[in-house]
Amino acid sequence: MADTNKNLSRAIYPGTFDPVTNGHLSLIERACHLFDELVVAVSRNAGKHPLLSFEQRLDLMESSLALQEYSCRVKVISFEGLLADLVREQEAAAIVRGLRAVSDFEYEFQMALMNRKLAPDVETVFLMPSLSWVYLSSSIVKDVAANGGDIQDLVPGAVKKALDKKFKAGK
Amino acid sequence: MADTNKNLSRAIYPGTFDPVTNGHLSLIERACHLFDELVVAVSRNAGKHPLLSFEQRLDLMESSLALQEYSCRVKVISFEGLLADLVREQEAAAIVRGLRAVSDFEYEFQMALMNRKLAPDVETVFLMPSLSWVYLSSSIVKDVAANGGDIQDLVPGAVKKALDKKFKAGK
Amino acid sequence: MADTNKNLSRAIYPGTFDPVTNGHLSLIERACHLFDELVVAVSRNAGKHPLLSFEQRLDLMESSLALQEYSCRVKVISFEGLLADLVREQEAAAIVRGLRAVSDFEYEFQMALMNRKLAPDVETVFLMPSLSWVYLSSSIVKDVAANGGDIQDLVPGAVKKALDKKFKAGK
Amino acid sequence: MADTNKNLSRAIYPGTFDPVTNGHLSLIERACHLFDELVVAVSRNAGKHPLLSFEQRLDLMESSLALQEYSCRVKVISFEGLLADLVREQEAAAIVRGLRAVSDFEYEFQMALMNRKLAPDVETVFLMPSLSWVYLSSSIVKDVAANGGDIQDLVPGAVKKALDKKFKAGK
Amino acid sequence: MADTNKNLSRAIYPGTFDPVTNGHLSLIERACHLFDELVVAVSRNAGKHPLLSFEQRLDLMESSLALQEYSCRVKVISFEGLLADLVREQEAAAIVRGLRAVSDFEYEFQMALMNRKLAPDVETVFLMPSLSWVYLSSSIVKDVAANGGDIQDLVPGAVKKALDKKFKAGK
Amino acid sequence: MADTNKNLSRAIYPGTFDPVTNGHLSLIERACHLFDELVVAVSRNAGKHPLLSFEQRLDLMESSLALQEYSCRVKVISFEGLLADLVREQEAAAIVRGLRAVSDFEYEFQMALMNRKLAPDVETVFLMPSLSWVYLSSSIVKDVAANGGDIQDLVPGAVKKALDKKFKAGK
Repeated sequence: MADTNKNLSRAIYPGTFDPVTNGHLSLIERACHLFDELVVAVSRNAGKHPLLSFEQRLDLMESSLALQEYSCRVKVISFEGLLADLVREQEAAAIVRGLRAVSDFEYEFQMALMNRKLAPDVETVFLMPSLSWVYLSSSIVKDVAANGGDIQDLVPGAVKKALDKKFKAGK
Repeated sequence: MADTNKNLSRAIYPGTFDPVTNGHLSLIERACHLFDELVVAVSRNAGKHPLLSFEQRLDLMESSLALQEYSCRVKVISFEGLLADLVREQEAAAIVRGLRAVSDFEYEFQMALMNRKLAPDVETVFLMPSLSWVYLSSSIVKDVAANGGDIQDLVPGAVKKALDKKFKAGK
Repeated sequence: MADTNKNLSRAIYPGTFDPVTNGHLSLIERACHLFDELVVAVSRNAGKHPLLSFEQRLDLMESSLALQEYSCRVKVISFEGLLADLVREQEAAAIVRGLRAVSDFEYEFQMALMNRKLAPDVETVFLMPSLSWVYLSSSIVKDVAANGGDIQDLVPGAVKKALDKKFKAGK
Repeated sequence: MADTNKNLSRAIYPGTFDPVTNGHLSLIERACHLFDELVVAVSRNAGKHPLLSFEQRLDLMESSLALQEYSCRVKVISFEGLLADLVREQEAAAIVRGLRAVSDFEYEFQMALMNRKLAPDVETVFLMPSLSWVYLSSSIVKDVAANGGDIQDLVPGAVKKALDKKFKAGK
Repeated sequence: MADTNKNLSRAIYPGTFDPVTNGHLSLIERACHLFDELVVAVSRNAGKHPLLSFEQRLDLMESSLALQEYSCRVKVISFEGLLADLVREQEAAAIVRGLRAVSDFEYEFQMALMNRKLAPDVETVFLMPSLSWVYLSSSIVKDVAANGGDIQDLVPGAVKKALDKKFKAGK
Repeated sequence: MADTNKNLSRAIYPGTFDPVTNGHLSLIERACHLFDELVVAVSRNAGKHPLLSFEQRLDLMESSLALQEYSCRVKVISFEGLLADLVREQEAAAIVRGLRAVSDFEYEFQMALMNRKLAPDVETVFLMPSLSWVYLSSSIVKDVAANGGDIQDLVPGAVKKALDKKFKAGK
């Protein structure tokens, strides 16, 4: 049957998630309205200086997802190398990305064009986070936590605990 | 069975299509990779001064889509009133929009937030056109045609014929 | 006494308010935290095709402001001619403008530079609306109302009534 | 001799110039540092509602240019139809455009890509106006003049006279 | 008396000032037109690699402000931790920020939304620097100085001396 | 003869070229349509952490340019210190820069204004790369190569070899 693949549609949501925020979780929930399976791919390589180790970032994603029911199958994997390769390997139909601001837009646009060149049959699908999380990013969360601010409303409980520990240890 | 609805996923691609361009057709093709059925909704009300009548815009969309096979079911309908109402009526899971430039992004973002307020359970999904059509818009096509330029590579044949006729008549 | 003027600080919030929305009202409330008196200046000349007459726009502003207490003195006036002249006439220290998006920012920046040239001692002060109104504009409200959508959460009651009447009459 | 053409380089600076401002004149001066001949092409068709007639816009450009020496040959022509055709007809190597703001940038980028498609061997060259004119546009000048503001520092004398006459006549 | 607090209005202008430039000083002057007291808060923590030590940045701000009269009371303090906490501690009505470009705008918008969440009753007030300083930033000043360029017109004398010394020492 | 200098026009194309990409080469080709001589200035100082040494970046530029004929004289030089000084030293009429995105635009605009202040008689000329390279940057090339992706279509052969070697050595 020709359409089976599409009917069981799978998308990849890649990121460094350093750490996962309520904004990411809201995007996962939204993407679940569109796909049957969502593969959350936590990147091993999180740029120059991730705050959290790869293991922590993966653990926090898994424990955060466990707290809630999603309307599609959500799977967490680790990811290294080229996103275009992962997409092929997972037989995914789409890459999911969140868009908040113009600067997001430009960078994401450039990445999407490059990914399209490397994997022409995969679409990048841009979704908007909930309005309440439009100002939220992993960096701003780390910044607030580092300065002793309360991040309880911005991240899952386990993330708050991990960051509090991190920043108290650093003092 | 709970998942039937999602497995037979339906999205709406609304627009004025004054006229439909190769950029729109490329977006329809891409959206078909993600959904089982795509409802192309041609808006009756095309702002203040559409070049083409509603009937022409609808006809040109239908004849343009007939020239090619798409990997999903594509249906053309006319549309009047609130997009959020149409989405509910059609039991669609998503609104599809193309993003080319920052100015697109901001306007689309604003519309998507308003649509989310009016129909909270519907996602707006942003896709990128092919790189080759990134500079293409209905207005630029009309502008080139009005000045006697060749739009053959930019629009389906029937659209070229309609615009040529329109602008010769005007002289 | 040298500082009297500043202590009784006055700012002007100019606009066409076609119609006033909850976003405008929220900005007025915020501006009141900063100034002793806020002069809301409804422009007589509202571009090419305002939906509402000048009298309606002025009335709706006045009746909307009457529904709530503000923490500063709020005065509504009509306004024609150059904003820079009005500012001098009113001995205002600042022009207040809302910023929602990048496109707002660029236009407002250009206007502010021109106003600074015409009235060098007046500052333009940019404020952010509440997050909940970041997607709201007079045009989008008119668009929703024109298509039969419910604008109850977006504008004061009197505005809803006026727009409903307008759009029913047009049918 | 192969290089003659380049050594006597010619560029086109197209626009509606409704009216010409000090910003346009500053850009012409700057473009003269780069080319031997600059063809200022005043578009007959200035959108929907130009304030000034084509003849006035052409006259004001010519009289404004006559007031100053330029370091290259500056020629004013009228222009109708496709810019890409004019460029070929004039054997120009480049189209010159001014960039002030992000919104300029996006529109100009789109036009430049379209012109490149229509005339592949012509470059669009973007220059910056002087910092003092970065906020200046024909529309803002008309707006200030229409409201009785002083535009003496913003446009050549003949333009000021023409606008003053226009707006007094309108009253 | 209820309004005393507003009449003696206080705002905070936070930054790393690495180093203070003429652009910052111009903004302080402008903010003084709007508030009775301006608290310039020099952040101890200036990102990863500030060029100047916290003590130098604080000293240079103080000596630069001493050179000129301001129309309001200007106070320099050091600042560590959350801006929202400082604002409460200082009983300030507003945070003052300068806006030059779209990228500023987006970042500032995000920070302002976060600060509003953390301190709901405080407004962020955006002001424009003078046109002459619109291209000026601490990084560009450091870049010019590092390459032996003359920064005399861009920064107060003491800053020039400090940077010259720094970059000669480095050779 | 007064105009000799312009007739033999020279422009500078500065960059870090870490590494040179097909996008840079396309821009050099385009700039050659406008100038008699193009000086490609490879900056010795390539920010904090260039991937390639200055010697490699210079070598790769030279060998890449050798593979093709250009319609003007192209010269590669190394460059240290202030761009404005280099421009004067080389008696260049213009600085050439590529523009791809809004974020490019803003940074380039700021740099151009600063360079104009430091060398008032030099124009910065912005050109667009070919549409096919609009998504290409040195960073994205390094990112793809670092993750084992194929960069053959994105850079000259020698660059591909150098990057492959670099990233294999790193494993």
